[in-house]
Amino acid sequence: MGYDFRMSEADFIARLRAIATDPAARGLADDAAVWEGLVLTHDMIVEGVHFLPDDTPQDVAWKLVAVNLSDLAAKGAAPVGVLVGYSLGDEAWDAGFVDGLGDALRRFGIILIGGDTVRVPAGAPRSFGLTAIGRAPAGGAPSRSGVRPGDQIWVTGTIGNAGLGLAMRLGQVDPNETCLAAYRRPQPQLAFGQAVAPHVHAMMDVSDGLLIDAQRMAAASGCEIGLMVEAIPLSAALLAVRPDVLDTRLAAATAGDDYQLLFAADPAAAPAIREIGAALNVAVTPLGHAGVGEGIMLTYRARRIALPERLGFMH
Amino acid sequence: MGYDFRMSEADFIARLRAIATDPAARGLADDAAVWEGLVLTHDMIVEGVHFLPDDTPQDVAWKLVAVNLSDLAAKGAAPVGVLVGYSLGDEAWDAGFVDGLGDALRRFGIILIGGDTVRVPAGAPRSFGLTAIGRAPAGGAPSRSGVRPGDQIWVTGTIGNAGLGLAMRLGQVDPNETCLAAYRRPQPQLAFGQAVAPHVHAMMDVSDGLLIDAQRMAAASGCEIGLMVEAIPLSAALLAVRPDVLDTRLAAATAGDDYQLLFAADPAAAPAIREIGAALNVAVTPLGHAGVGEGIMLTYRARRIALPERLGFMH
Repeated sequence: MGYDFRMSEADFIARLRAIATDPAARGLADDAAVWEGLVLTHDMIVEGVHFLPDDTPQDVAWKLVAVNLSDLAAKGAAPVGVLVGYSLGDEAWDAGFVDGLGDALRRFGIILIGGDTVRVPAGAPRSFGLTAIGRAPAGGAPSRSGVRPGDQIWVTGTIGNAGLGLAMRLGQVDPNETCLAAYRRPQPQLAFGQAVAPHVHAMMDVSDGLLIDAQRMAAASGCEIGLMVEAIPLSAALLAVRPDVLDTRLAAATAGDDYQLLFAADPAAAPAIREIGAALNVAVTPLGHAGVGEGIMLTYRARRIALPERLGFMH
Repeated sequence: MGYDFRMSEADFIARLRAIATDPAARGLADDAAVWEGLVLTHDMIVEGVHFLPDDTPQDVAWKLVAVNLSDLAAKGAAPVGVLVGYSLGDEAWDAGFVDGLGDALRRFGIILIGGDTVRVPAGAPRSFGLTAIGRAPAGGAPSRSGVRPGDQIWVTGTIGNAGLGLAMRLGQVDPNETCLAAYRRPQPQLAFGQAVAPHVHAMMDVSDGLLIDAQRMAAASGCEIGLMVEAIPLSAALLAVRPDVLDTRLAAATAGDDYQLLFAADPAAAPAIREIGAALNVAVTPLGHAGVGEGIMLTYRARRIALPERLGFMH
């Protein structure tokens, strides 16, 4: 997810950036650090903030691994291993967490390198941290900041399933398996990220919402990103629950937890990108273009529309 | 600190070890992992458990860095950089933390690589995690498990200052600067660890108490470690407050937070070890010997004594 802050935290991030002067840190403005051929990232998840107290420990462990590997995917990295910071709970919960962690390690072919375990005071929300390490692609890890005016903007998969899955978990919407699974077991686009990295100018993962993350990419790159809201890929599972209207599309684009890849490439790379998507069975959708300017600009059926007040999940 | 668990957590660590099968993890039984020439460690600290709510943010940041670098020191590693997992507090506290973090980065010549920031629910204790990365020594990183019968057992510096400093912070003892500083600003023995690494059979840092850590080293190595309690090095600052009696020595040896290095070496290496200590102005004290057997065995003025009930800080 990288260092993404609310305005009230602007002073904090400014201070932190002032001491993160090494190029490896990428100004704390990218999904991950790149140091001597390695890609490194550290994300935390907190009970009641990033997961629900009644999420299963297996799902929490999976999510902790998956959100960090999604940052590696966005840098085209091949994941190697993780270090885990763990807050102990009760015995059954802890055992379930290890089961979920083991599932994720096997699924992604990575190793548990080490970590630490602490006991938090009774009743306190638990927090978990994970550091993931991967190998950078031979041609270098794409950053968020490389978008060039004229680039085509793409996204993998579909957007909004996990956000709707969270609403289902909260009993606000009738559940369906596809959306619940997207919330419970996000799938980082590792193979696609590695394959597409040589073809992109910039790449990041969509963790806090398509719109807010596109805005961050535009800001990091010093250009404007124009997105066609009608092109945002929505799943059949989402459209079975929600009508295909503008509000549905904006809700999906601001919900977060998608863990898809957002990337910018020269339009001439489109055939190669489509070929990679087809080979890996990953949907790839062109969403718009970058231009001279700043921020994001939304159109819906060829008309410019106002940005929603909230562009994504701020945590 | 590594994965050190209470008996009630035995099941958890057993499960975790079952999925940490790669040699890099060292069975989760060492201070740090060693992978492709890098040494990696991750320690967490929790408010009310590892630091006092009224410790200054500068000191908390320093300690978070220092305890992790102490793990690297124990592997003879040269530190490179850190990733930080941070729980936001109020603005002044956060600014103080960044100041302390910057101090530590400069002091130890390392870089801030990246990290993550989260907001915990109001009133919840905050927890911080840090992953430290260093370069392993050319001859390989010493483990905890290499002690051989006949080895001499050594410790750097003095033992018990930080524990007494904590008692001073809690108002239980009249304060003095040396002990308070040992609690507030632990100094990892990085230069000494790198210099001595080629001469040792085993090395670890003393974080939870000299006795409990020696017991862990004995268990990892499959031998017995005999320690002469009268040889445990105590500072003048400690002895200014406490009489030099057995109870004082056992309290110091079970207090924790020393961040000294405990190591085992062939007796023939003693001159080299003393020379390194003299060159780096680090006190080195032979404490005893390893033998065939298991656990630790204490003597005081040539008589065997019973182990105290509590060997160190269990957290």
